[in-house]
Amino acid sequence: MERPERDAAFMARAVELARSGHGGTSPNPVVGCVVLDAAGQVAGEGFHAYAGGPHAEVVALAQAGERARGGTAYVTLEPCDHTGRTGPCSGALLAAGVARVVIAVSDPNPKAAGGAARLRSHGVAVTTGVLAEAAERVNEEWLTYARLGRSHVTWKFAATLDGRSAAADGTSQWITSPQARADVHRMRAAADAIVAGIGTVLADDPRLTARPGPSPSEDRPDGPGGVPGAGAGGRRVPVRVVVDPDARTPQSARVLDDQAPTLVAVADDADTGLKADLLRLPRHDDGLDLRALLSELAAREVVSVFLEGGPTLAGSFVRQGLVDRVVAYVAPALLGSGRSALGEAGVRTIGELHRLRFDEISPIGPDVRLIARPATHPGREK
Amino acid sequence: MERPERDAAFMARAVELARSGHGGTSPNPVVGCVVLDAAGQVAGEGFHAYAGGPHAEVVALAQAGERARGGTAYVTLEPCDHTGRTGPCSGALLAAGVARVVIAVSDPNPKAAGGAARLRSHGVAVTTGVLAEAAERVNEEWLTYARLGRSHVTWKFAATLDGRSAAADGTSQWITSPQARADVHRMRAAADAIVAGIGTVLADDPRLTARPGPSPSEDRPDGPGGVPGAGAGGRRVPVRVVVDPDARTPQSARVLDDQAPTLVAVADDADTGLKADLLRLPRHDDGLDLRALLSELAAREVVSVFLEGGPTLAGSFVRQGLVDRVVAYVAPALLGSGRSALGEAGVRTIGELHRLRFDEISPIGPDVRLIARPATHPGREK
Ligand SMILES: NC(=O)c1ccc[n+]([C@@H]2O[C@H](COP(=O)([O-])OP(=O)(O)OC[C@H]3O[C@@H](n4cnc5c(N)ncnc54)[C@H](OP(=O)(O)O)[C@@H]3O)[C@@H](O)[C@H]2O)c1
Ligand SMILES: NC(=O)c1ccc[n+]([C@@H]2O[C@H](COP(=O)([O-])OP(=O)(O)OC[C@H]3O[C@@H](n4cnc5c(N)ncnc54)[C@H](OP(=O)(O)O)[C@@H]3O)[C@@H](O)[C@H]2O)c1
Repeated sequence: MERPERDAAFMARAVELARSGHGGTSPNPVVGCVVLDAAGQVAGEGFHAYAGGPHAEVVALAQAGERARGGTAYVTLEPCDHTGRTGPCSGALLAAGVARVVIAVSDPNPKAAGGAARLRSHGVAVTTGVLAEAAERVNEEWLTYARLGRSHVTWKFAATLDGRSAAADGTSQWITSPQARADVHRMRAAADAIVAGIGTVLADDPRLTARPGPSPSEDRPDGPGGVPGAGAGGRRVPVRVVVDPDARTPQSARVLDDQAPTLVAVADDADTGLKADLLRLPRHDDGLDLRALLSELAAREVVSVFLEGGPTLAGSFVRQGLVDRVVAYVAPALLGSGRSALGEAGVRTIGELHRLRFDEISPIGPDVRLIARPATHPGREK
Repeated sequence: MERPERDAAFMARAVELARSGHGGTSPNPVVGCVVLDAAGQVAGEGFHAYAGGPHAEVVALAQAGERARGGTAYVTLEPCDHTGRTGPCSGALLAAGVARVVIAVSDPNPKAAGGAARLRSHGVAVTTGVLAEAAERVNEEWLTYARLGRSHVTWKFAATLDGRSAAADGTSQWITSPQARADVHRMRAAADAIVAGIGTVLADDPRLTARPGPSPSEDRPDGPGGVPGAGAGGRRVPVRVVVDPDARTPQSARVLDDQAPTLVAVADDADTGLKADLLRLPRHDDGLDLRALLSELAAREVVSVFLEGGPTLAGSFVRQGLVDRVVAYVAPALLGSGRSALGEAGVRTIGELHRLRFDEISPIGPDVRLIARPATHPGREK
């Protein structure tokens, strides 16, 4: 194998390792690392599993021990150069005597960047940009958060093949299958926040909690602090956010129960006696300023938001270019009337339509799940 | 290999052969045949290629010659027992001395049925129902036509991921990709008729002709008569049908040009001087009686209809249970407003939604093509 091919193969493994950390590392990135010994044999592997836990490089180097000396390290994200809860990874790589470091994506975080430069200044050979696209993808939420200073938004909807989310009389249970609904719970559980509009809260009184079935990662240790919402049993749970300019959320709404923390985002001029954690935000044309909402959530270390609708709020997010990923569950069914899955999104004529690209198409039970991302995106380098 | 497995394997080949006839055999079924010699080796293969041409069994037997004696024939559809343009296939199988005949689907056509019985009465071993589901599928258009006495309907639509077919100002060119549009032309070309509502004709002035790119089947010979619409060069072209109760089609509409034959379906009480082939039909709640339309088309040997919309007409077809297959081209794009792909289809509450099942999910360029069929269907035995 040529060196570029070898590099790509080991980086692909590092990306897989990074993926294992998904849903657990917030507000940190997911990172994977593979360490080869001087002879080119794998000596150590690691990934960052939870905030406050050891970084991927440290795990892989510990496993490699003395075999790392003169070897090569593959890291999906530029090794950090600052001393946070754990020491800088650049220092750990130097101390281990690694001769070459291969990096997929540079660190956009000014506090952490500089790892590559420091390694080079100590005579380590550094190659960057290897398999950058896959490494961007696995870390898309954190990279959007770090580059744009706002939470990454996944908008989920469930609809019939003709794009309807409810029948003419408003009934909608159930359009999609139990399998699709279980998949939604898994996705919710991996997010830091679940967001819904007051329209949905008033219409459905949803709980907005993640209730995934048992999964192999259930016993993963949780980070101690900095992670949004810690539920009764200490398990990290996504924080619930209601977008509710005039504080119309009923005090008895299920979203205010004690199953998970909740923020009610209201207008800064809202006059309310609601007993809830309020997040005051400026008004904007059609409700609250959603960019301000996502910045405020980012300031609270919410890396990823799972937007559950409804159509009105989703339309505003789409119009403002604030949807980073669309997850559509399409049921094999036709309605012909009833609410559309997406409301007004600022498109008057066909040239203004919001272009996406399909990245994943998967059958989920009898339904189809389509994952799409904007055709162009300010938070994406690949 | 066990005999049931061998039977299934040879029948699968016969189904593939049948598929080769697709788009060319109307108003006949597609049929495939494999003949084994007494030792179980393939001696002949054939399919029915065009109406008036030799039947699949005759082609395969001719190829097998004397090797057919004592052998086995696999046929996707029960061999016919009547003498039409060609002699009965049951007789041909008897004359060839075949010892066993394996059949996938029984012939629902009373004129042609009886082949299996005749073979049995002459001491031939007959097995039926082998791989019936695949053989039903490959012949679904003709089986619906033969069993229900009406044309089979494929409804095609193109929409965004949120189910819209046009932007708020009515513009819709182009939502889907050139690849998807080329695929539509291939599908159109395989149909006997292309149907649209007067709304679509007035809005878009479409040609409703099939303009597929060059394809390997272009030089397939055409049957002499009984096939709907023969274009200038003698090539079979789908007949165009406008559903237009009050004969509002403008005399200058493109659909009335000389590129293909056209039927304008009008109400039996319509008072019109329109110079066009008129098909007079009873009125029904929301326009013309569509079941009567499909029976009339079937009487004209239109086996398969490709319904191009618009949303209003499609809604009526769906409501009346007259859509047998849905082909949806979904573009990776969001509109949030504008016309929905499907209009009123008689669903008031969620329990009444029209359930389908997805049978094929394929990327077509940047788009996704979803093929769905009703979850239950009167013209389907599997
Ligand atoms: N199929 C699915 O996947 C799905 C998912 C969720 C919900 N739903 C359905 O959606 C329906 C409710 O949706 P909905 O559209 O009525 O309400 P919604 O989108 O949940 O909430 C809309 C409300 O959010 C507030 N808002 C605050 N800032 C906003 C902004 N920047 N842009 C837009 N709205 C903003 C406004 O409240 P004020 O009016 O107080 O200003 C607005 O009326 C329910 O029937 C529910 O069942 C379906
Ligand atoms: N995206 C796509 O795949 C696609 C495909 C085709 C068209 N389109 C779009 O669809 C739009 C036109 O659609 P449309 O809904 O206005 O018109 P339409 O569905 O093409 O035609 C509706 C008309 O058909 C007549 N009709 C006769 N019998 C009927 C019955 N049983 N049920 C319902 N209608 C019956 C009625 O005419 P009378 O009013 O005279 O009674 C009715 O108004 C255009 O903008 C076109 O661009 C999109």
